Amino acid sequence: MKLNIAVLSGDGIGPEVTHQAIKVLKAIAQEFDHSFRFKEAPVGAIAIDQTGNPLPDDTLQLCEASDAILFGAIGDPKYDNNPSAKVRPEQGLLKLRKSLGLYANIRPVKAYETLLDKSPLKEHIIKGTDISIYRELTGGIYFGKKQLSEDGQVASDLCEYSREEIERIAHLAFKAAQSRKKKVTLVDKANVLETSRLWRKVVTELAKDYPDVELDFLFVDNAAMQMILNPKQFDVILTENLFGDVISDEASVIGGSIGLLASASVGDKYAMFEPIHGSYPQATGKGIANPIASILSAAMLLEHFGLYKEANVIKAGVEKSLQLHVTTPDLNDNFDHITTSKVGDFIEDFI
Amino acid sequence: MKLNIAVLSGDGIGPEVTHQAIKVLKAIAQEFDHSFRFKEAPVGAIAIDQTGNPLPDDTLQLCEASDAILFGAIGDPKYDNNPSAKVRPEQGLLKLRKSLGLYANIRPVKAYETLLDKSPLKEHIIKGTDISIYRELTGGIYFGKKQLSEDGQVASDLCEYSREEIERIAHLAFKAAQSRKKKVTLVDKANVLETSRLWRKVVTELAKDYPDVELDFLFVDNAAMQMILNPKQFDVILTENLFGDVISDEASVIGGSIGLLASASVGDKYAMFEPIHGSYPQATGKGIANPIASILSAAMLLEHFGLYKEANVIKAGVEKSLQLHVTTPDLNDNFDHITTSKVGDFIEDFI
Ligand SMILES: CC(C)[C@H](C(=O)O)[C@@H](O)C(=O)O
Ligand SMILES: CC(C)[C@H](C(=O)O)[C@@H](O)C(=O)O
Repeated sequence: MKLNIAVLSGDGIGPEVTHQAIKVLKAIAQEFDHSFRFKEAPVGAIAIDQTGNPLPDDTLQLCEASDAILFGAIGDPKYDNNPSAKVRPEQGLLKLRKSLGLYANIRPVKAYETLLDKSPLKEHIIKGTDISIYRELTGGIYFGKKQLSEDGQVASDLCEYSREEIERIAHLAFKAAQSRKKKVTLVDKANVLETSRLWRKVVTELAKDYPDVELDFLFVDNAAMQMILNPKQFDVILTENLFGDVISDEASVIGGSIGLLASASVGDKYAMFEPIHGSYPQATGKGIANPIASILSAAMLLEHFGLYKEANVIKAGVEKSLQLHVTTPDLNDNFDHITTSKVGDFIEDFI
Repeated sequence: MKLNIAVLSGDGIGPEVTHQAIKVLKAIAQEFDHSFRFKEAPVGAIAIDQTGNPLPDDTLQLCEASDAILFGAIGDPKYDNNPSAKVRPEQGLLKLRKSLGLYANIRPVKAYETLLDKSPLKEHIIKGTDISIYRELTGGIYFGKKQLSEDGQVASDLCEYSREEIERIAHLAFKAAQSRKKKVTLVDKANVLETSRLWRKVVTELAKDYPDVELDFLFVDNAAMQMILNPKQFDVILTENLFGDVISDEASVIGGSIGLLASASVGDKYAMFEPIHGSYPQATGKGIANPIASILSAAMLLEHFGLYKEANVIKAGVEKSLQLHVTTPDLNDNFDHITTSKVGDFIEDFI
């Protein structure tokens, strides 16, 4: 298979971890006789520094001309401390999601057997957890009208959802559940929010098309609690943009390190693959950033194009590296000399 | 001291647990020579059944005429399954908060030494945790304009905050921090939301009045993760309505049971005290509901009126009951015969 892959490695540890994912993809290409072409473009704080724009037109055009996007991370403390700056790195990511119509963010959360002891949660709580979170990514309060009154006294954000926005991601979630444990849990706040009531109504109606899938509801406050009390109860979680942001970051503690969690952001035309950890500026350049989330994002990319065998080889390499403790310091109490690129090398060699 | 206390015990397990809190308050009154008068009024699903209104005028008037309100819980599954019902129990609670101007919801979260093993989190993670969450309670997306388009295709909720709404609760949070570990963490989503940027601006300015208090910021997604990874880092958490709802329910797992968590909702004129658990309909009438959250809410009521000695006696009674395993089944693997009222009796006798 021929794939043109746009590489937007971004800020902080983004470039280092993305570099490992590319190494791994190149090894797959060679081993399985595919042709993957990589083209890089700036995004985020580094793009602001270079062009004044967190998503330069050239970057967007490259993405539109590619088969898939491999994304690193964005964010820089110099903007975090100044959230009222007119131009911020996050805008690049949000604009990318919106422009490419990447309406479904898919985040798998798994408790690895070999890492059960790394989680702040007790082993019996997390053992066997296997969740797939479907977070709506181009609607809701992220993209609704924002206002600040002229005198700066009152601010507002509008959360808006249409039936269509809900239906398209709900279909994906139900289809995913069909090839899993056949359960979808809708997380909302239908006891307070009008948008949540629309979500509940639309999803309930649409569930009739999937009689083999059980549909469950949880208020988001309760979901935040249940995720810790008993994560095994979940199979597919379906939720809106902001709730998905919070619940999926919370769920990352199950795996023992946020450095393990990959994600896919897909729409009808484009698809982007991205570790869920951020730019982690404190770790930049130190060789301590865990590349596994980025490498597993590359595996999700392959799955997206039906290359399951190839993806499985990457996943097996990851499991092996975890078993043998060839891991960065976030997962390794004994050795602190195993660097980002050594983990990449190990998985590359495995392939 | 003379206090008129309105009792709104509400739905599900509300009445059973509130009954224990009243027993305990009566014991305090006798022991310390106070005069507490209790008057009951309906709220929630039971009020809808009786009057069609989840917050009858008589109930609101009773609250306005009282010194404090002891609240139980509201909610009934017959409404949860039908979130588009025109009248819902939650509306009673929200209207009560708004009408009485209860803008600050205060939720203490503590890891009890004797219960460290009950939490899904590992002991070394939670040991020593002592957090006070200040959640804004009468603004934000809970009370903003809600719309459903005529054709039912588009729904929206407006999240709105004014400088004044932010300032008044922020002052309370900073003052609380001054008598604690002198740290306030503002939880927001300032990288996306205009309202969060206003919160960050206003709170940063106001922090100058409290030079002895350290101010920290966390995005809500990261906060949801940090609450599990390292809850001891927190002292006072300050946040808006919806984020506070999610983060405080999540934090309840630290204590080992949501049945332990009390809250106070205060404004400039009125104050209400309430366990954070809901109506828990599955447990209603079985004698298994944990009354401690309600009893500790009564202790918060006493503290609100400066009766610290009295509140401390209640807290000591609670600690004792936990030490001796005089606890309901949620905290007790060995005995399942210790009922709601036995726990209440024990603490009453202790006093
Ligand atoms: C960086 C930020 C805007 C983003 C989000 O909130 O969506 C991030 O937290 C994520 O989850 O990808
Ligand atoms: C019942 C519901 C409306 C309420 C809320 O969301 O505020 C509850 O979850 C709470 O936290 O007191």
